[in-house]
Amino acid sequence: MTFDDLDTPCILVDAKRADSNLTKAQTYADKQGLKLRPHIKTHKLPLFAKRQLELGAVGITCQKLGEAEVMAGAGIPDILISYNIVGDAKLARLKKLHDRLTVTVCADHEAHIQGYADAFTDADHPLPVLVECDTGSQRCGVQSPEDALALAQRVAAAPGLRFDGLITYPPRGLVGVNDWFERAKHMLCQAGLPPRTLSNGGSPDLYHAHTVTHATEHRPGTYIYLDRMQVGYGLGTLSDCALTVLATVVSAPTADRFILDAGSKALTSDLCDAPGFGHIIEHPDAVIAVLNEEHGIVDASRCKSRVTIGDKIRIIPNHVCPVSNLFDSVHLIDGDALVETIIVAARGQVT
Amino acid sequence: MTFDDLDTPCILVDAKRADSNLTKAQTYADKQGLKLRPHIKTHKLPLFAKRQLELGAVGITCQKLGEAEVMAGAGIPDILISYNIVGDAKLARLKKLHDRLTVTVCADHEAHIQGYADAFTDADHPLPVLVECDTGSQRCGVQSPEDALALAQRVAAAPGLRFDGLITYPPRGLVGVNDWFERAKHMLCQAGLPPRTLSNGGSPDLYHAHTVTHATEHRPGTYIYLDRMQVGYGLGTLSDCALTVLATVVSAPTADRFILDAGSKALTSDLCDAPGFGHIIEHPDAVIAVLNEEHGIVDASRCKSRVTIGDKIRIIPNHVCPVSNLFDSVHLIDGDALVETIIVAARGQVT
Repeated sequence: MTFDDLDTPCILVDAKRADSNLTKAQTYADKQGLKLRPHIKTHKLPLFAKRQLELGAVGITCQKLGEAEVMAGAGIPDILISYNIVGDAKLARLKKLHDRLTVTVCADHEAHIQGYADAFTDADHPLPVLVECDTGSQRCGVQSPEDALALAQRVAAAPGLRFDGLITYPPRGLVGVNDWFERAKHMLCQAGLPPRTLSNGGSPDLYHAHTVTHATEHRPGTYIYLDRMQVGYGLGTLSDCALTVLATVVSAPTADRFILDAGSKALTSDLCDAPGFGHIIEHPDAVIAVLNEEHGIVDASRCKSRVTIGDKIRIIPNHVCPVSNLFDSVHLIDGDALVETIIVAARGQVT
Repeated sequence: MTFDDLDTPCILVDAKRADSNLTKAQTYADKQGLKLRPHIKTHKLPLFAKRQLELGAVGITCQKLGEAEVMAGAGIPDILISYNIVGDAKLARLKKLHDRLTVTVCADHEAHIQGYADAFTDADHPLPVLVECDTGSQRCGVQSPEDALALAQRVAAAPGLRFDGLITYPPRGLVGVNDWFERAKHMLCQAGLPPRTLSNGGSPDLYHAHTVTHATEHRPGTYIYLDRMQVGYGLGTLSDCALTVLATVVSAPTADRFILDAGSKALTSDLCDAPGFGHIIEHPDAVIAVLNEEHGIVDASRCKSRVTIGDKIRIIPNHVCPVSNLFDSVHLIDGDALVETIIVAARGQVT
């Protein structure tokens, strides 16, 4: 059976290409003496999380507790939740996870630490906590190394918690991250709280991760599949992209327009620097100009070849992570051959 | 139990408000002598589809076969699939549906009609087909009334098919739709193929649907929940919006920035004319400036009140339809009270 027999729209994952992307990153990290802790938000599949560990990752990263619960259920033994856990319901779930495996969390305010300290009181099995630092991406994180130290001391003072280090989601180009970590590390060491982990992240600058010399680990996510956005960042080429959306031409009302059965509920409305909502492999000059929910409206005015209703085409999405969250399953392929269909176990784990 | 006890992010649907939106539209349609055939792509819930029928809708509309299969399974007896059905796999599924209930489909090219004619051959139980017309929205549809007539004749000539009329997804403002329908209807009548259905659609111009005097039915979808986009179109006010995303403040790193646990995997990246990625009811001056996958980054520089980590807030999405496709369940509320939690039965029905 080939993927052309599949009904559309659906997700195809070129398993060898994904594996090659994973291997390349692990080889790089090994060479640099950097630990990898891949983020599973991109694939949401225990199969690939296990493969990442097998290749040498020290553990995985999840963004949501629900993702961590799915991965723990599949036997993953070491999970960093790179997210502030807030509220009694989530703390109770975190406690259950922590009873079963190594789980590490984040904090960027004493409110988080208070929550953790109230829920975790066993000094013999403390909860590891990383202090999140805003090194320039202007998302979460304390604003200065001084604030990082103050929170580290709060963590260290709680019997049921263990200060493990710092974490950041860096700005593009990793600008300033190393200096930030250096200053914070110095202050922490002086205060008798040497960080064992300095965790940096992101796929765009994955192959520059070694320039953050103070980082001990890196958390890339999208590097497994790549997408148009990552290709724009220089992480690879279109032919390295492992995930495509298979779609069908359902209408061709004019010579310069055709319509695909993949709209914003399949490709998402995420944009990137390249034009349109995805790259059509078979028609590289076509532009997916407009997405309605279930229609991709393609400007074919610059296409060299014409389409026929019923043609199946493959799209490299702009941003692959939210796309794999929209489908209940992915189809692993090897060339044209359909190898296996897998349920996206952590799809829709929003909480 | 109140909705404040729910873990976040999650979807709240104010059931009375939704019902009021449905009732208002049906009352309008009844007054205008127009049939309503609501599109269920917005709510994807059999509960609301049944309520729409109870209020007087003549049937429902689905965009995908998978949605129709779910609705048929829930007992909905009359479904229009406002989509060209292409390919053997889908035609086989369509045949199964057609054996069980009244199902109508679309065509805008002879390739579709050929597919239907090959699959449906029983003259005693023909498949009703509408010819889709591009009246100005530049999506699917034949380009002229002459082409509509030619396809209608193709449908009428196939023993297992029945020509039922025309369908369009109109341009904003319904500009030109009535003229288009008038010309096509005239030609069809002259050719002995009077259309029994002239189907118009869309929520933005729902309350101007009567100006398309030749239309026999209208297919609104988003009108059940409304959203920021529809409010921008004048369909209602923010206080008419029935669906909100409940989210939690998980970080407040600076005085003018806070972070929500709802990102593009909860709110989608869909934009509208209003700034940002959604309207925060409790902080109307806040702007959800950036969405990462699981973080909503809020510019609070113009907010009158400060937030605290752990605060729960409610967001009216820019575009509600893809949002309700991201959550496995919705919570029906009445004021603050949680009434019921319902599985989104047709979520993720992409094929």
